[in-house]
Amino acid sequence: MKLTILGCFSASPSKNHFPSAQILEIGGTNVLIDCGEGTQIQLRRCGIKFNSIEHIFISHLHGDHFFGLPGLISTFRLLGRIKPLNIYGPIGIKKAIILMLKLGDSWTNYDLRFIELESLDPVLLLESERFSVKTIPLNHRIYTNGFLFKEIKNERKLLINKLLKLGIDKTQFSGIKKGNDGINAVGEIIKNIELTESKPKDISYAYCSDTCFNPIIIDLIKKCNVLYHESTFLDSHKDLAEKTKHSTAKQAAEIAKLAKVEKLILGHFSSRYKNLNSFQNQAKEIFDNVELASDGKVFNF
Amino acid sequence: MKLTILGCFSASPSKNHFPSAQILEIGGTNVLIDCGEGTQIQLRRCGIKFNSIEHIFISHLHGDHFFGLPGLISTFRLLGRIKPLNIYGPIGIKKAIILMLKLGDSWTNYDLRFIELESLDPVLLLESERFSVKTIPLNHRIYTNGFLFKEIKNERKLLINKLLKLGIDKTQFSGIKKGNDGINAVGEIIKNIELTESKPKDISYAYCSDTCFNPIIIDLIKKCNVLYHESTFLDSHKDLAEKTKHSTAKQAAEIAKLAKVEKLILGHFSSRYKNLNSFQNQAKEIFDNVELASDGKVFNF
Repeated sequence: MKLTILGCFSASPSKNHFPSAQILEIGGTNVLIDCGEGTQIQLRRCGIKFNSIEHIFISHLHGDHFFGLPGLISTFRLLGRIKPLNIYGPIGIKKAIILMLKLGDSWTNYDLRFIELESLDPVLLLESERFSVKTIPLNHRIYTNGFLFKEIKNERKLLINKLLKLGIDKTQFSGIKKGNDGINAVGEIIKNIELTESKPKDISYAYCSDTCFNPIIIDLIKKCNVLYHESTFLDSHKDLAEKTKHSTAKQAAEIAKLAKVEKLILGHFSSRYKNLNSFQNQAKEIFDNVELASDGKVFNF
Repeated sequence: MKLTILGCFSASPSKNHFPSAQILEIGGTNVLIDCGEGTQIQLRRCGIKFNSIEHIFISHLHGDHFFGLPGLISTFRLLGRIKPLNIYGPIGIKKAIILMLKLGDSWTNYDLRFIELESLDPVLLLESERFSVKTIPLNHRIYTNGFLFKEIKNERKLLINKLLKLGIDKTQFSGIKKGNDGINAVGEIIKNIELTESKPKDISYAYCSDTCFNPIIIDLIKKCNVLYHESTFLDSHKDLAEKTKHSTAKQAAEIAKLAKVEKLILGHFSSRYKNLNSFQNQAKEIFDNVELASDGKVFNF
C-alpha cells in the first residue's frame, strides 16, 4: 500500500496546514479517506489524478473532515468523470451534499452512490478479491468511524529463475500465480509447489481519527501493519483531550502498544503547537516505531 | 477603498488558482465578497485578520463562490469571535449553512445573521454613515447578484494650516469636519467655509460576477470608479460564454465603456488559459483602463 497524507491538522486550513485527508493506494486503486477543505489543492500538489479515486470514506461530519467534499464532487464533473463514485459516511451526508449541489442547480454526470453508516458495531463496507474495508467504531463527540483496510494477497509468488530454467512459457505465469501446475518445454507437468512460494501475508492499515482514548478498538486493529491514530494534543493538554474527546500522543501510543501494531503514524495535530517533535518524543516513551504525519508525506508499506 | 483579490479564477481551487473571493476595505471595515473553497488559506496568506470581517456578500450559490463559507463560519467560532456576522446571499443559503453545521453538532458563539435575497430588482442592503451596498441583479444560469459598494464622504476636508494659524483648538476639528463654524483663540466665530474644503466625491466599486453580457446593468453602475467584471472566456470561446451565461473580456470591456466607469478589473478566468495577457489585450481594443485581477493582488482607489 502507499499512503499519501494530504492533510493532517485539526480544525481550519491555513497556508501551511491542511485538515484531514489521505489517499491510500490499495489493491490497484486509490481511495480517499476524509476530505477536509483544500483537499483538491493537495491532490494537485501531490500529483494524484482525480479520476484514480474510486471510493471516498468519511469518518465523521465535523467540517475539518468533509467540507472539501462538495467541491471535489463538482470538480469530478468538470473533469468529465463518468465512472461511479462511492461515498461511505455517516447518515446525513447524502442530504448535505445533494442540497449543496441543488442550490447551484448542479448535478453529476456520473453515478454518485452514497453508503450511509449508522451502526455502532463494526461493518464490512467493501470486499473484493484485492482488498476489504471495515469500519472501526470510534468514540468522539459525534458519530464517528475509523476504517480498517486490508490488502488481500491472493496470488502465490513466482520463483522466476526456476520457471525460466525449466523453460516454462510466460503465458502460464498468471495461472501458476493462482495455484496451477506448470508444463515445461518437453511437456512434463511440474507441481505448483516447486514453482512458487506461498503467498505473502495480507497487509492492513487502520485509520483512527477522531477519537478519545478508547481501548475497545484494540481487538479490531490487532497486529495491523500500520495504525494512523489521531493525537490532537500533547500530554500537557490531557484535560482538553478528555473534554473534546480527542487523544494525546501518549494515548495513541498506548493503543498502538496494546494492539501490537507494527508502526504508528500520528496525525490530526492541533495547530497550537509550533514544533511537533514533542508528539514523537512523548509517544516513543510508550511505543517505539512512531512517525509523524505531515502534509504531502508518503508512507509505503 | 482597498480591494484585495483572494481568488479570481472560475471553477475549482488548485495549487495556483483560487476561486472567487475578495476583501473590500470600505468605511473603516472589511467586507468579504464571495467565498470560494480555500478563502481561509488566502486570508492567511494576505495577512487579513478574520475578525475584521463584518459582512459577507455571496453573489450566487455555485460552489466556486460559496463552498468556503461553512469552513469560514466554523473558524470564526474557533477564533473566539463574539461580534455578529451578517451574511447576504440568495435564498437557500441559510438552510445549507445551518445543515452543514448541524451535521457536525456545531454552533456559533456569535450571532449569525442571514439576509436572504430573492428580488430581481436592485435592493439597498446596507446604508450607514460611512458606506452603502446595493444589489446589481445579474443574468447567469442561476439567481445571481452583483454588488455596488459606495463609500460616502460625509465630512468636509479641514484646511489644517489655516486652523492652526487662527489658533483654533483641535477639540473643535471633529465638529468643523461636520460643518460647524470654529471659534478662534480670542473667541471670534469663523465661518466653516473659511476653514474647510468641500467634501470629496463618494467612491464606488461594482462587483459583477457571474453574468452574461447584460447591458441592463449599465444604469446601475454608471460612472462608478472601479468595475470588477467577470471575463471567464476569450473571444475565441464566445459561443461557450453564451452557452454558459458567462462573459468574454471584450464583453466586459463593452460594459465598462457603456457605463463610463474609470477603471475595469477583469477576473473569473477559466483555468483553460495558461497566459492571461490576451484578456487584457482583447479588452483594451474597446476600453483602455483595464487591469487583470490576480490572486493576492491589491487595488487602492
